[in-house]
Amino acid sequence: MTKLVNQNLKMFLDELASSSPAPGGGSVAALSGALGAALSSMVCNLTRGKQGYETAQAEIAEKLDKSEELRIGLTELIDKDTEAFNEVMNAIKMPKETEDQKEQRRKALQLAFKHAAEVPLETARKCIQVLEIARIVAEKGNKNSISDAAVSALMAQTGVQAAVLNVRINLSSIKDTKYVQQVSTELQELLQNAMEKSAEILGIVEKNL
Amino acid sequence: MTKLVNQNLKMFLDELASSSPAPGGGSVAALSGALGAALSSMVCNLTRGKQGYETAQAEIAEKLDKSEELRIGLTELIDKDTEAFNEVMNAIKMPKETEDQKEQRRKALQLAFKHAAEVPLETARKCIQVLEIARIVAEKGNKNSISDAAVSALMAQTGVQAAVLNVRINLSSIKDTKYVQQVSTELQELLQNAMEKSAEILGIVEKNL
Repeated sequence: MTKLVNQNLKMFLDELASSSPAPGGGSVAALSGALGAALSSMVCNLTRGKQGYETAQAEIAEKLDKSEELRIGLTELIDKDTEAFNEVMNAIKMPKETEDQKEQRRKALQLAFKHAAEVPLETARKCIQVLEIARIVAEKGNKNSISDAAVSALMAQTGVQAAVLNVRINLSSIKDTKYVQQVSTELQELLQNAMEKSAEILGIVEKNL
Repeated sequence: MTKLVNQNLKMFLDELASSSPAPGGGSVAALSGALGAALSSMVCNLTRGKQGYETAQAEIAEKLDKSEELRIGLTELIDKDTEAFNEVMNAIKMPKETEDQKEQRRKALQLAFKHAAEVPLETARKCIQVLEIARIVAEKGNKNSISDAAVSALMAQTGVQAAVLNVRINLSSIKDTKYVQQVSTELQELLQNAMEKSAEILGIVEKNL
């Protein structure tokens, strides 16, 4: 299959809408984060070298580097999420006739579910970092692009929410209770962090719109 | 320029992140809605003909048709938003030396701003319809895909929020106060509607996750 990120928007949307369960919400979460990072990068690019933004130049240049790094990482996670889902599907299809096969399959499934949880967990963590950049961009970036800073924050926030749901779905199949407990705690923190950061950014934008 | 929807995800994200102000948040709003529609379509497709969902078949088939129609409409709005932005840019560049030219430019600008407001307004309206479908899908669709129904709702909700910001930015340049008043009222209704519908859907999903 063509890598998702090499498909055009129309094809990707067709593939998403099709009766195949992958790509699904996990890849969309990563794409949402990548779109958020791209919009923060755009506002940084529209601020660089602009009159009236002299004192912000160093910080904006630094945020642009970070935002582009996150954009690349989140873009990779679009395919990684679908790959991790397919690993689970492959483990499900493993033979389960002998006791030995059952044990092998069980182990492979648990590994696959953990991986399928960790990919959207990474998406959520990266989206939080996009929100940190979007806040600086909304505060100090080109005022003509303030609505783009807001949309950047909205996409990153949604990326966290969507990714968290996809982690939870996979956690429900994982038997390692200590792992489940630990990740669940992180998910709550990520969600709360995302909602607070996003509300703060939208407040900054509201004052300047 | 290649139509945005014919660009691959990587190229589209590069273009978005670049120092060109278009595409920007308005096109991302439409894409967010299209992703939401695609995920609702996917859950419908994964529900059709499935055992245990016999009584939902007729309604799911109907929602799938509607969801696909919305997906096509929202996909078109990705390019339409960038085109509308470029119309504003072209009007700004019109000559303004004589009184006659100034008047022509003023008229062209007002028309262009109204068009640039109406495109994201249409995006927001369509995203509300995606939310209506996502609710049915979360309630009656394949339970194995319930997190996808939730992500569908999140993307559509974000589509409304992002589109509303883009309408507001353009309204701030429109002199026709009656028009501005009327659209502003609709925006408030769309936003409230989106937040209520989305919260309701996430509540349904939470009970079934």
